[in-house]
Amino acid sequence: MTQLCDIGFIGLGVMGKNLVMNLVDHGYTVAAFDLDQEKIDGVLAQDQQERGDKAARVVGCNTLETLLASTKQPHLIILSVPAGKPVDIVSENLLKAGMTADAVVVDTGNTLWTDTVERTAKYEGQFTLFSTAVSGGEVGARFGPALMPSGDAAQWERLAPVWEAIAAKVDPDTGKPLESYVPGQPVTEGEPCAAYIGPAGAGHYVKMVHNGIEYADMQQICEAYQVMREVAGMSCDEIGDVFEEWNKGPLNSYLIEISADILKQKDAETGKPVVDVIKDTAGQKGTGLWTAISSLEVGSPNPSIAQSVFARALSSMKTERVAASQVLKGPQVASLSVAEKEELISQLHDALYCSKLCVYAQGFHLMKLAGEQQGWDLDFASIAKIFRAGCIIRAIFLQSITKAFEADSDLDNLLVAPFFVEQIEERQQNWRKSIAQSVMNGIPTPVFSASLAYYDTYRNAVVPANLLQAQRDFFGAHTFERLDKPAGEFYHIEWSQPERQQVRIK
Amino acid sequence: MTQLCDIGFIGLGVMGKNLVMNLVDHGYTVAAFDLDQEKIDGVLAQDQQERGDKAARVVGCNTLETLLASTKQPHLIILSVPAGKPVDIVSENLLKAGMTADAVVVDTGNTLWTDTVERTAKYEGQFTLFSTAVSGGEVGARFGPALMPSGDAAQWERLAPVWEAIAAKVDPDTGKPLESYVPGQPVTEGEPCAAYIGPAGAGHYVKMVHNGIEYADMQQICEAYQVMREVAGMSCDEIGDVFEEWNKGPLNSYLIEISADILKQKDAETGKPVVDVIKDTAGQKGTGLWTAISSLEVGSPNPSIAQSVFARALSSMKTERVAASQVLKGPQVASLSVAEKEELISQLHDALYCSKLCVYAQGFHLMKLAGEQQGWDLDFASIAKIFRAGCIIRAIFLQSITKAFEADSDLDNLLVAPFFVEQIEERQQNWRKSIAQSVMNGIPTPVFSASLAYYDTYRNAVVPANLLQAQRDFFGAHTFERLDKPAGEFYHIEWSQPERQQVRIK
Repeated sequence: MTQLCDIGFIGLGVMGKNLVMNLVDHGYTVAAFDLDQEKIDGVLAQDQQERGDKAARVVGCNTLETLLASTKQPHLIILSVPAGKPVDIVSENLLKAGMTADAVVVDTGNTLWTDTVERTAKYEGQFTLFSTAVSGGEVGARFGPALMPSGDAAQWERLAPVWEAIAAKVDPDTGKPLESYVPGQPVTEGEPCAAYIGPAGAGHYVKMVHNGIEYADMQQICEAYQVMREVAGMSCDEIGDVFEEWNKGPLNSYLIEISADILKQKDAETGKPVVDVIKDTAGQKGTGLWTAISSLEVGSPNPSIAQSVFARALSSMKTERVAASQVLKGPQVASLSVAEKEELISQLHDALYCSKLCVYAQGFHLMKLAGEQQGWDLDFASIAKIFRAGCIIRAIFLQSITKAFEADSDLDNLLVAPFFVEQIEERQQNWRKSIAQSVMNGIPTPVFSASLAYYDTYRNAVVPANLLQAQRDFFGAHTFERLDKPAGEFYHIEWSQPERQQVRIK
Repeated sequence: MTQLCDIGFIGLGVMGKNLVMNLVDHGYTVAAFDLDQEKIDGVLAQDQQERGDKAARVVGCNTLETLLASTKQPHLIILSVPAGKPVDIVSENLLKAGMTADAVVVDTGNTLWTDTVERTAKYEGQFTLFSTAVSGGEVGARFGPALMPSGDAAQWERLAPVWEAIAAKVDPDTGKPLESYVPGQPVTEGEPCAAYIGPAGAGHYVKMVHNGIEYADMQQICEAYQVMREVAGMSCDEIGDVFEEWNKGPLNSYLIEISADILKQKDAETGKPVVDVIKDTAGQKGTGLWTAISSLEVGSPNPSIAQSVFARALSSMKTERVAASQVLKGPQVASLSVAEKEELISQLHDALYCSKLCVYAQGFHLMKLAGEQQGWDLDFASIAKIFRAGCIIRAIFLQSITKAFEADSDLDNLLVAPFFVEQIEERQQNWRKSIAQSVMNGIPTPVFSASLAYYDTYRNAVVPANLLQAQRDFFGAHTFERLDKPAGEFYHIEWSQPERQQVRIK
């Protein structure tokens, strides 16, 4: 190859290597660097293997100087290195290697959004740091991820054709992913799951909330599974069949699909269903936790996402749970008739649907409030579109969310979008019955319950915070507003005086 | 007064002034400083008014030099200034005014615990910063607060007699507060609500969790109130009567007591119950939120406290809620017979009791984990004792918690203490029925529900995180442990390969 490469790529781990091969599929030539020569050799071998006797599209570089010299100017450099310090180290080394101020460096790592904000300011004038959160794991990176780019809008012009090429694609009419998993034969039509999100930090924030939603989505599926197992006494195969059936309807989604697949899988060693040999202690990498913390800080209630983080924490307390199970009693589970079992499954379906809606309503509300606080001007229809393919939470459901935001871009909350109002009206009785039954049977459904409490609070003009405000005024003189006086007038009752006089404070 | 004062006191706001008068009641002489001369005059006038022709015990100081000169050496200086920067400013100014390294300065503000840790290190060698979190508001400060002192253990020796004198007192046999609200006639017997908590930061951390528990306690009472109002159609007076009745039993507590009082109070202007004119938008100052965030960070699930923070956030979205109430439907509330109403009240009582236990179990578990992570060696029986009087969450219930930790100081979780095992076993059916009824009637009880889900998860040896781990391994190769293999062995299934081979990773 005598021509200069289109893109310089740094970091050839699982994600990096697959992103490179995805770029290659779309005709881009890539100068590829890694500290580990084996990884460089690996991507060169894969390029060779997949493309055969066609001209190579990857150039291995074992110094950053070579990388810069092998790449067209102004430089477009993509980083796939671990979040945190490595991003700074590589950036500094690129500058030492002679990278100039017209270069754009794209961070595709799982960076905390506030770090991106700081880093973008730090390198201003030296080069442009742009960031793009990537969702979809290894397979997504290879054949079409969901991409959440953010940073300097002018740089987006330059990057857009690249990201739009390699992103997952959606049929815009149905909202369904268009998929191909054959190297060299990428999907080239459809709507790409990549659109400019906003200024520095915005894309990583949206990705963080995506992961928070993913936590709750996974936990909800687990709750439905546990109820079917414990209350209806169903086998893994039977539950897998139910998920397979659900995947044909409005719950159609990647997570339901893989849950059906998993539940039908047998362990080679024992012959048991594979889930029956897997230890029930969930790990976490932190993005769900960040979302829950941000929701507390921003003041946008996300109880369903918080509950899913807590459920993982509780699962990891296995030793304590085993000990507690010896002493703490629960109710006897009543056995079900065939008809009751069918009813339970149908109720669970609607519980999952309604709860899922509350989770997305919370996640989008959080992005709305955070976006307002940060001045990001987020486009929620566009964000919903990105989520339709490539990422873990991809689901047919996202098409309805897209339409809701297309119809009203200022929508306060997804719960009040006309389509969803109808959906919940039809299904809420089943949702309630499902929770009531679980409560009486002693099966925990923390996310289903938190979602319903969210719905029932949100739709109530009057909540009991009047008593709470009175308590706060009683012991802490925190004052209160009155329903019959203008907002912004604050009153206090002198509770410790016999007269209990009410005075206006400001 | 020709003799030097026992204590130098800086900051004569509501809390400061009342703490000074409390010290005076117990025979201490105080050199008092404030930037505002009126506040100095105010506390001198109060000393004069309350003590009449007896010798004054407060000396007004309008410079820090005078304060130091008027106080015995080595100096004991108490600060009651706003948390944050003011603590540093006063500290620096005391050093400029000649305070020496043998002085101890006690911060009684609502300081974030991590700030205290940093500040203590910063001033080491210049003077000893000691901190004491104070709970109980204005009245508590005056007649007996709950005190959570922490810092250099050697300084505690010196401070203990002072704090033990002015703290709230408890009858050690019954756990009930011993109270007097007459100036000059303080309670001098009983067990003081002040004990050394641990190294720098520990006391403020414990106070933070106290406030998180307080949030959930208040929200639970509000949930019971709303169910009685909406489902049973009870008047405020009737609900006040119920709380008054409950206050005679195991729910006996300050918050139940004031709730009964509040509900019976009429608004002078309209003649309505006062809660019916108070706007249902709750404020918050941040300590509940800090507790929820810490619980996420520490990895100790505190869903009930998080739900109470979210409930406040939802309450403050009044405009959205009013709009949503126009379009979002809920179920019709079924009307109740007299017998059903009585049953509902009895079920709510047990729901409140069981949920309250889960809240305390979560709060104490959080302190346990945080304490282990920080190396604080917390004494939970001692902390429970402190909470029995003076503070907002004081309750007869704390005596049972004290006993549980006295019986087993290493108790993993209050839920498995024998007394509480019995209590929940007796009451859980009512708890479940109460939640099921609220769910079917559309009345949100987020903390009741989160507490039950916590209980039902904690007592389950098997939770559905096995499916969740399989999902994580499927899309992210996150690996899993097996139930039939040693902990620490991690496996991965090659889900994208037709053979679905399972491999050991490490």
